[in-house]
Amino acid sequence: MSEYVSMNQGELKQALAQLREQYAAFQARNLKLDMSRGKPGADQTDLSVEMLDVVNSKADFNTENGFDCRNYGLFDGIPEMKALFGEMLGVPASQVFVGGNSSLNLMFDTISCMMTHGVGGCEPWSEQGEIKFLCPVPGYDRHFAVTEYFGVTMIPIPMSKDGPDMDEVERLVQSDASVKGMWCVPKYSNPAGITYSDETVRRIAALKPAAKDFRIMWDNAYCVHDLTDEPDSLLNIVEECQKTGNEDLPILFCSTSKITFPGAGVAAMAASDANMAVFKKRFSLQTIGFDKLNELRHARYFENYQGFLQHMQRHRAILEPKFQAVLSMLEQRLSGKGVASWTKPNGGYFVSVDVMEGCAKRVVELCKQAGVALTPAGATYPYGRDPKDSNIRLAPTYPPVDELITAMQLFCLCVELAAVEKLLG
Amino acid sequence: MSEYVSMNQGELKQALAQLREQYAAFQARNLKLDMSRGKPGADQTDLSVEMLDVVNSKADFNTENGFDCRNYGLFDGIPEMKALFGEMLGVPASQVFVGGNSSLNLMFDTISCMMTHGVGGCEPWSEQGEIKFLCPVPGYDRHFAVTEYFGVTMIPIPMSKDGPDMDEVERLVQSDASVKGMWCVPKYSNPAGITYSDETVRRIAALKPAAKDFRIMWDNAYCVHDLTDEPDSLLNIVEECQKTGNEDLPILFCSTSKITFPGAGVAAMAASDANMAVFKKRFSLQTIGFDKLNELRHARYFENYQGFLQHMQRHRAILEPKFQAVLSMLEQRLSGKGVASWTKPNGGYFVSVDVMEGCAKRVVELCKQAGVALTPAGATYPYGRDPKDSNIRLAPTYPPVDELITAMQLFCLCVELAAVEKLLG
Repeated sequence: MSEYVSMNQGELKQALAQLREQYAAFQARNLKLDMSRGKPGADQTDLSVEMLDVVNSKADFNTENGFDCRNYGLFDGIPEMKALFGEMLGVPASQVFVGGNSSLNLMFDTISCMMTHGVGGCEPWSEQGEIKFLCPVPGYDRHFAVTEYFGVTMIPIPMSKDGPDMDEVERLVQSDASVKGMWCVPKYSNPAGITYSDETVRRIAALKPAAKDFRIMWDNAYCVHDLTDEPDSLLNIVEECQKTGNEDLPILFCSTSKITFPGAGVAAMAASDANMAVFKKRFSLQTIGFDKLNELRHARYFENYQGFLQHMQRHRAILEPKFQAVLSMLEQRLSGKGVASWTKPNGGYFVSVDVMEGCAKRVVELCKQAGVALTPAGATYPYGRDPKDSNIRLAPTYPPVDELITAMQLFCLCVELAAVEKLLG
Repeated sequence: MSEYVSMNQGELKQALAQLREQYAAFQARNLKLDMSRGKPGADQTDLSVEMLDVVNSKADFNTENGFDCRNYGLFDGIPEMKALFGEMLGVPASQVFVGGNSSLNLMFDTISCMMTHGVGGCEPWSEQGEIKFLCPVPGYDRHFAVTEYFGVTMIPIPMSKDGPDMDEVERLVQSDASVKGMWCVPKYSNPAGITYSDETVRRIAALKPAAKDFRIMWDNAYCVHDLTDEPDSLLNIVEECQKTGNEDLPILFCSTSKITFPGAGVAAMAASDANMAVFKKRFSLQTIGFDKLNELRHARYFENYQGFLQHMQRHRAILEPKFQAVLSMLEQRLSGKGVASWTKPNGGYFVSVDVMEGCAKRVVELCKQAGVALTPAGATYPYGRDPKDSNIRLAPTYPPVDELITAMQLFCLCVELAAVEKLLG
């Protein structure tokens, strides 16, 4: 089949009629499918249920250093979980701060803290006039929502296959003291599934920010979420920043939300001692401590980091076919038609599709009208504004494979339909 | 025995020598006892361990409305816990917001939200210049630490047996628009164990604040923590505020931290729809949701509010003897000596002792030097400053009764010793 752009009006009109017919057939099926959020499937949450038996009424509730997890104390986490997260984040256990059930919550609180109390010995961000954050795009809508909530001006930074455009990042960070931070999902980025190249990580570590209180929000949400035999590898940002004397730059986050239970997992963060002193002061006033019984449940169930990685293989067994279904459907239905390009990630939770410019909203609307929920178009951009109206995030994890295939058939059809509508003006 | 104040110098010197001898004997025992925090004992956390068996690998993970608690969703809590907390807080289930493991965290976030984003359609508190909070004293140190962190000026309000001095509260709230809030622990207050009288609650509900964004932080931490056959009863603040058209005034908090597991319990809050719209916006950006498996664990274990109250009877059976031990020791050792007065609470977690003016720090220091940790003197006042240096919070819950008796023997001795030192100049 030739590309739609090379068709004449007559051919396009004919194509439109055919596509509309197919679309009507989908609508008649009354589908109700959801590919909107990065939500594990029930088969994935099934993988971790035995964890719930580990800390039972007969259990020993003491940590390895003899602390009763049923009571107050150990505000920054039990040693077992600090060790596990230390390996996950690539930092010494002593640097890990174990939080509650949500890394987003830790990130929100960290931003909130820097807004009201500042970091690096500087004035609170809220007292420095306009401040800005760099937002690699497409990116994670919940990150952008946090900075938007606090009135931070967000500057989109284009992503290439190596990560954010570092020329642009260097230019902005090094010239503008109102640039206070950058959101990063450095491995299997949300949504493009891109892992920052070694050079990108080194250039981030070598930044010479104009602002003393510039910080990198390093959300390593998918650090162990490999889906292929050739997983990506990510350079250790903390080690690179030690080499450049930029220890205070990165603030690392991760969680087990997509490893054990979304909402009932454990989250953690790590940063330099100077940074953590600021954040810990806040956390120590915010709470007496987090849920150590849930920490103990996780630590006992996984035993160690190896146990953790083995568990991830079981997730891969479930997710790899889902990603393959999405990718092969895109290949089958859209390849060579000039209406879309997409990423082929080695891990993570998403496939990112760029449809014909000006068509993303229409595609999402068409899918919705036929019963398939997608992440809203624009959600992957700050303020929900995709200047090209082109990017759509597909979340293949939640639906079973058969539903996924149906949803993808509809999606591909809608991509074509929107493109032809556009070409016809 | 006569009061120390009526003794002459010779008698006092003789008393001092005897007390010092007794004190030296205590020091020789190398005690290591802790009455510093409101922390349940291991016997109390034992009461709830069977809860940990309820949500096991074979369990049905669905809420009564068919929601899988292992996954994202139900951001404001599962219906079972909303119902339970609704009864606890005296509001409809629909008004309850179930949070994470810590009511302190909900309170911190609520204050933080009003600081950065405001409430009641007003400017953020942080943009209104100096703002003030009324702090009934003696009160809860962690409350004061939160408002201090955000730079709020704290005004101590004396407590009587009926609650805060309402003449003073009315005068300040109704004349000064910079007064934005008041901390309240309305039942079995921390530390005095006072329950606000009906008249006090009605006068709070009838306040006509100068500030449209004045709010009551109603921390009902001990609402079900009765310790005697004649428990206190507290008027329903929400109902009273409905009568006066002051629905937006109170923000209610509670948790199961001292019912199930400190740190691994469930917390909740409730407020008017207008208030909750502001707070929910923040929470919805801060987290995808709280730990619903732990909510389910609690809901299934207690079944209903009756189960909850029965569980509290088991706590009472453990705590009542501890409070009796403390009170009878105070009575035996200090009654009639003119060196201390104390509260006799019908519930809660503390006994509040007022020692001779200028002696509280010295008493705490003397106890520490002999191996008994108490809450720091002054902690029950904003900024840690007790103007009379008189109040000491005793936390009888954690130590076993025999240790408690030893600790109280030492405490009473130190109260006498400090008083005699003071009288001798």
